[in-house]
Amino acid sequence: MARQDKLKLGTFVYTFGFHPASWLHPSSDVNGANDIAHLKRVAQMSEAAKFDFLFMADSPAAGIGDPDALARSPTKMNRFEPLTLLSALSMVTERLGLVATASTSYYEPFNLARIFASIDQLSNGRACWNVVTSDHDETGYNFNRTGLDPHELRYERCREFVDVVFGLWDSFERDALLLDRDSGLYYDKTRHHMLNHVGKHYQVRGPLNIAPSPQGRPVIAQAGGSEAGMDLAARTAEIVFSLASNIDRNRAFYANVKGRMPALGRNPDDLKIMPGVVLNVGETEAEARAKVEFLIDKLHPDVGRLMLSEFLEADLRGVPLDEPFPMDRLPEQPKGSKALFEELTDFVKKGHTVGELIRLYAEKHTGNGITGTPVQIADFMEEWFETRAADGFILMFPTLPASLEDFTALVLPELRRRGLFREDYEGATLRENLGISVPVNRHTAARQRSAASGV
Amino acid sequence: MARQDKLKLGTFVYTFGFHPASWLHPSSDVNGANDIAHLKRVAQMSEAAKFDFLFMADSPAAGIGDPDALARSPTKMNRFEPLTLLSALSMVTERLGLVATASTSYYEPFNLARIFASIDQLSNGRACWNVVTSDHDETGYNFNRTGLDPHELRYERCREFVDVVFGLWDSFERDALLLDRDSGLYYDKTRHHMLNHVGKHYQVRGPLNIAPSPQGRPVIAQAGGSEAGMDLAARTAEIVFSLASNIDRNRAFYANVKGRMPALGRNPDDLKIMPGVVLNVGETEAEARAKVEFLIDKLHPDVGRLMLSEFLEADLRGVPLDEPFPMDRLPEQPKGSKALFEELTDFVKKGHTVGELIRLYAEKHTGNGITGTPVQIADFMEEWFETRAADGFILMFPTLPASLEDFTALVLPELRRRGLFREDYEGATLRENLGISVPVNRHTAARQRSAASGV
Repeated sequence: MARQDKLKLGTFVYTFGFHPASWLHPSSDVNGANDIAHLKRVAQMSEAAKFDFLFMADSPAAGIGDPDALARSPTKMNRFEPLTLLSALSMVTERLGLVATASTSYYEPFNLARIFASIDQLSNGRACWNVVTSDHDETGYNFNRTGLDPHELRYERCREFVDVVFGLWDSFERDALLLDRDSGLYYDKTRHHMLNHVGKHYQVRGPLNIAPSPQGRPVIAQAGGSEAGMDLAARTAEIVFSLASNIDRNRAFYANVKGRMPALGRNPDDLKIMPGVVLNVGETEAEARAKVEFLIDKLHPDVGRLMLSEFLEADLRGVPLDEPFPMDRLPEQPKGSKALFEELTDFVKKGHTVGELIRLYAEKHTGNGITGTPVQIADFMEEWFETRAADGFILMFPTLPASLEDFTALVLPELRRRGLFREDYEGATLRENLGISVPVNRHTAARQRSAASGV
Repeated sequence: MARQDKLKLGTFVYTFGFHPASWLHPSSDVNGANDIAHLKRVAQMSEAAKFDFLFMADSPAAGIGDPDALARSPTKMNRFEPLTLLSALSMVTERLGLVATASTSYYEPFNLARIFASIDQLSNGRACWNVVTSDHDETGYNFNRTGLDPHELRYERCREFVDVVFGLWDSFERDALLLDRDSGLYYDKTRHHMLNHVGKHYQVRGPLNIAPSPQGRPVIAQAGGSEAGMDLAARTAEIVFSLASNIDRNRAFYANVKGRMPALGRNPDDLKIMPGVVLNVGETEAEARAKVEFLIDKLHPDVGRLMLSEFLEADLRGVPLDEPFPMDRLPEQPKGSKALFEELTDFVKKGHTVGELIRLYAEKHTGNGITGTPVQIADFMEEWFETRAADGFILMFPTLPASLEDFTALVLPELRRRGLFREDYEGATLRENLGISVPVNRHTAARQRSAASGV
């Protein structure tokens, strides 16, 4: 039987688009990283299309590597800081969810809990935190470290960090604010709570000094395909940004993560699994293919090598494009994202030349891309959705806003014709539009349990 | 001779106004801490009045103390986080400077440098960071500490933190971005620089991954009346938020801080000394006095005691209002702001009852308040300005927006009649409106020196 719910869709934001040559596309706004007008437009177009959210990727570091290639690569070198950016965009949108990436390795939980609670107030319940532990050495160098902390330590700290943030978000119960001028009581002191967290990595007394979230609490997104990542997702995530190179692997991932949830007291419907997909759409296959080729032609080989180097943690400067990938440069174990590394090394092991790998990556990321007509793309999405490989997709548009415009004009009508995507927003908050439940405040729950047991 | 420059003015923002009973005033928006509409209005009114900036006070902690008093006190218990708030307000204002408080004790310099650079981009050059080291134990409890760090350690870390932030802000030189699609070069690699800072408290490699500031770099504000605070101000500040209980003391402070600047290679005109003043204005003295009395009548004694307790670092719960202040409860040395403590203990030592002290503080903060007619207030400002006790004022309006409306309607015309305040903004950026110079990028300066010496 066909699913009764609808696809969820989000716009993945690198400033000019996912493709590393996107800023060279004639349709792009070359000032897009300096002038908010560009991303305001992308946000408003995403909202007009009734997308669930805008998803800001991030890394708290400029790229590292070949300086000549970096000088041709805006994405990591110059971009708005995502927490300030989403706050700004909250003022020029009304229904669009606002997802920002922030690292548990380099923030204090009190600050981050407060910042997301504030974005949630500014946006009337549309904030989402994409929890990451960071995955490149370059970030550690900016935060008193000699590189990335080990994977296990990053996840251990991340779990405690998220616990603290959830605790702080529960400081005020939902009915705490009285705002009663007659009695002079602004809030009910019995509905406001200290946290008094004392853990291995953090000691945080609380309470948080901001009102309860308009959507119960900000939504939690996560990526992370490792065992630790899947465990954390099953426990805490409400959106999972997964890789999408292979439908069978995704069905297994989907079943695995959702299968863990009931034992953790969670309803699997409260987690939306949304693979990232790079979309190249044209009215014909030839037109779609021509769009891919146009951008690949614009891609400088140094930038291509830099791009591969980053995910493969291998320095590829000067490696000839027409020779097979130098396997001896691959690390045995990646320090960063294992999932990204493994997907990409699957390509590498097929014996492609460096030039071919660059082309593949530029078109399809680690394989999670589709180039085709609106019907082909809708077929792809429908199959993934109906067979529970995905609840929706995070759309990694090669260029912004051009590929988003294409998708909206060509693919959305086809998805809507099939009844797969909404005609209008179902609700006001991100949680309402995603169709996920409002978590119960821990103090409210405790009181309800006490009352029920007659204590 | 009369000064040729103009008064600088900023709106100090606690949500509902400076007065702890402001939220009880019938004109206030009781949802002001939850609905951005209120502060958007305050920002737009400040801009319509041609004020230099909005100044967001902050503390990363809820208040601590008598729970019954806290439940009557919105200010510290529920407010927007200032960095997200200013980002949002950047989208609904065009010329108003945006000042946010952030503590060097509880942030990482890379994050804060990036956040302020981003607000500066969002606002086209209107960002200002109010550098604080935090001054209450309650903040330490939220950041893995058992209280406030010692004063000297806080300032030592602060000096290094600010150095790192300045270094990161210089990552891109002003002419670094080429945005040249023909050559495919986004920036000039010779104009982008690593920091490689290795200090006692921080190791930060850089570079920062955001474009150069539209105003050279974000403006720096500071308070801090201690020796360490004055030294830091002379070295780095462009706005000093000082106390204003006494004109002679302020003239001495003004001469002291500005007098240190030439030896540090700075022009004293590049620092604006702006005492905070609590203004109660009425068309007649009686009307102004009635406004003060109205709010004081609304102030619950528990809230008054809490308010005094905070600055005097003494628990005043249950102390009778009609008895002299219990001197034995005062600490010998305050942990927090020495300047605030000393100003307030001057009051205390005069033998006032606790009730009288609460009234004094509620009307005039630590003495830096004036209650009177537009002419009296303009006289006060003119005297302070012309005798160089101040370059302008940070206006601590008892209620928002009502007192700001009063000031705009009643006092501004008088100031303008005297030629003391601008009719319109002089420029686009905060730096241009304050009339302070654009700092030269260190790498640009080094290259210019090399070129001049023929190396």
